[in-house]
Amino acid sequence: MNTKHQTQAMRVGILGFGGLGQAASRILSPKQEMLWVAAADQKGFAYHAEGLQADSAIATYHQQGSVGYLEPWGQLSQHSIAELIEKSEVEGYFLALPNLPNTFMADIARLFIQSGWQGVLVDALKRTSAVEQLLELKDELATAGITYMTGCGATPGLLTAAAALAAQSFAEIHQVKITFGVGIANWEAYRATIREDIAHIPGFGVEKASAMSDQDVADLLDKTNGILALENMEHADDIMLELAGICSREQVTVGGIVDTRNPKKPLSTNVQITGRTFEGKISTHTFTLGDETSMAANVCGPAFGYLKAGIGLHQRGIHGLFTAAEIMPQFVR
Amino acid sequence: MNTKHQTQAMRVGILGFGGLGQAASRILSPKQEMLWVAAADQKGFAYHAEGLQADSAIATYHQQGSVGYLEPWGQLSQHSIAELIEKSEVEGYFLALPNLPNTFMADIARLFIQSGWQGVLVDALKRTSAVEQLLELKDELATAGITYMTGCGATPGLLTAAAALAAQSFAEIHQVKITFGVGIANWEAYRATIREDIAHIPGFGVEKASAMSDQDVADLLDKTNGILALENMEHADDIMLELAGICSREQVTVGGIVDTRNPKKPLSTNVQITGRTFEGKISTHTFTLGDETSMAANVCGPAFGYLKAGIGLHQRGIHGLFTAAEIMPQFVR
Repeated sequence: MNTKHQTQAMRVGILGFGGLGQAASRILSPKQEMLWVAAADQKGFAYHAEGLQADSAIATYHQQGSVGYLEPWGQLSQHSIAELIEKSEVEGYFLALPNLPNTFMADIARLFIQSGWQGVLVDALKRTSAVEQLLELKDELATAGITYMTGCGATPGLLTAAAALAAQSFAEIHQVKITFGVGIANWEAYRATIREDIAHIPGFGVEKASAMSDQDVADLLDKTNGILALENMEHADDIMLELAGICSREQVTVGGIVDTRNPKKPLSTNVQITGRTFEGKISTHTFTLGDETSMAANVCGPAFGYLKAGIGLHQRGIHGLFTAAEIMPQFVR
Repeated sequence: MNTKHQTQAMRVGILGFGGLGQAASRILSPKQEMLWVAAADQKGFAYHAEGLQADSAIATYHQQGSVGYLEPWGQLSQHSIAELIEKSEVEGYFLALPNLPNTFMADIARLFIQSGWQGVLVDALKRTSAVEQLLELKDELATAGITYMTGCGATPGLLTAAAALAAQSFAEIHQVKITFGVGIANWEAYRATIREDIAHIPGFGVEKASAMSDQDVADLLDKTNGILALENMEHADDIMLELAGICSREQVTVGGIVDTRNPKKPLSTNVQITGRTFEGKISTHTFTLGDETSMAANVCGPAFGYLKAGIGLHQRGIHGLFTAAEIMPQFVR
């Protein structure tokens, strides 16, 4: 039984069903305005026009390794995303996919372009170079009738948008400094995310981090007492603020502390925007996230807010590539 | 001599030329993307297609009481706004007009509707009831081909947008609390604004505050040592967040301290957004403005950011009424 007004609710899908995708499905459960109808992971997909249930999908994934095993809506597939696109009716997808390899998101965008599907795609990718690859697809996305919202998680995403907003008080921006604190009780629930973080540590990088076994990761974390300290990270906040004309990418820095053994954040995630006002004063606006909000809440919440905004754009015939720094996310009830 | 690329720059006007309008003209001076071509006050207007100069306009207003005296571009008029609309080519106006009487902004909107002009209007109004009056004009604005952005100053405006953004982390919003600190060295430069603040004090109200002479205001401020403490103010942040579907207006509170004898802010202006995440955690995000940013910077900066965003919407054929809580302002270079 599903109480949502299915004719009115936006029909949305989730691609990728790791920690982020699972959290996304839970966030959608109580929403009246969005109906979760589709999911895909590496081994399969599930689709039900009247809505999937988060609990059963998550249980199936944990027990059997793929939503493709979900009875009776699942199907195993070597080409799960392509097959899902073909067999479903979905207005927009949240791409809760791993950021690695770094070309992955652009490859998925190409898959959608080639399929002829029209709708909204939202990603929560992290790296500047990944956004650069999507930028190359800007015209193709527009021609294909796809509204693609990139960098719409927490950072980039929520904090980038806060920086874009804060910039309004200033005649000139001097620095945008993002400092995040992440605390997770059990890193094994976020295997892909942790490798992405490790890739930012000097001496690692994307390839080396991707190739690490779980034991390698555990060994590294044993050496650091579970703490990952990250500085000058390649984060797409920089290119997004540059594209929005707010500052050059060199003026944007991203760093943080990840505690993989404690759900309490080691510091409050914040973005500081320093600039000069028209009167010549130098000042700093600060946007600080409450410590009790999880990475999942700060990534998936905005992602669906941008998905709703993207669906609004798509309905007005506005297609192409947009970032979190230029569109206001819409609250999903 | 004007170095701006006049064929590319957005041609904008400022209606009202008190403290806010004058600050707005100074903010526009260095901008490459916007060219200030028009201004009007109660007694006259000025228009020059190749751009007005802030310094000379402000000096003229101070010395003679109206931009209508500005040589050679000014003209005195009993119907300055109507005449300016008729005689100028302007893409968008910032309505830097007094908030009192409370029907003023809606009256100006009607004037634009009746004139047949098409373009973008941005206000920085404060009161909920003023937005309610504009809401009644929503369809007329859309039909007339006007894109009207309301509540696009600091609060409502910048802080409302920050609240709308912060809300994305939460499944449910419990409270939005705006607390502002304003410090001004010389209240006489902001005569209208101070009366609007006084109108919020218990025992006053809009009519009584409007009727106060400068001496009455000075006497009141002598009694309070120059401090105005304001609580539970009628501010349109509430209706704007309600319209955006984020929370009900009762959950939004606005209060603050205005020091009329000290440019230093008595407290840092901030908005706190408290809600429940999908995991059931209660938390609070906070957006805090740097103390060195003036009211003028925090009001006029966003207003032009929303004006630029509005011009983008207008060019796509999107007309009607929008608030700061639903559109991302665009940075004006």
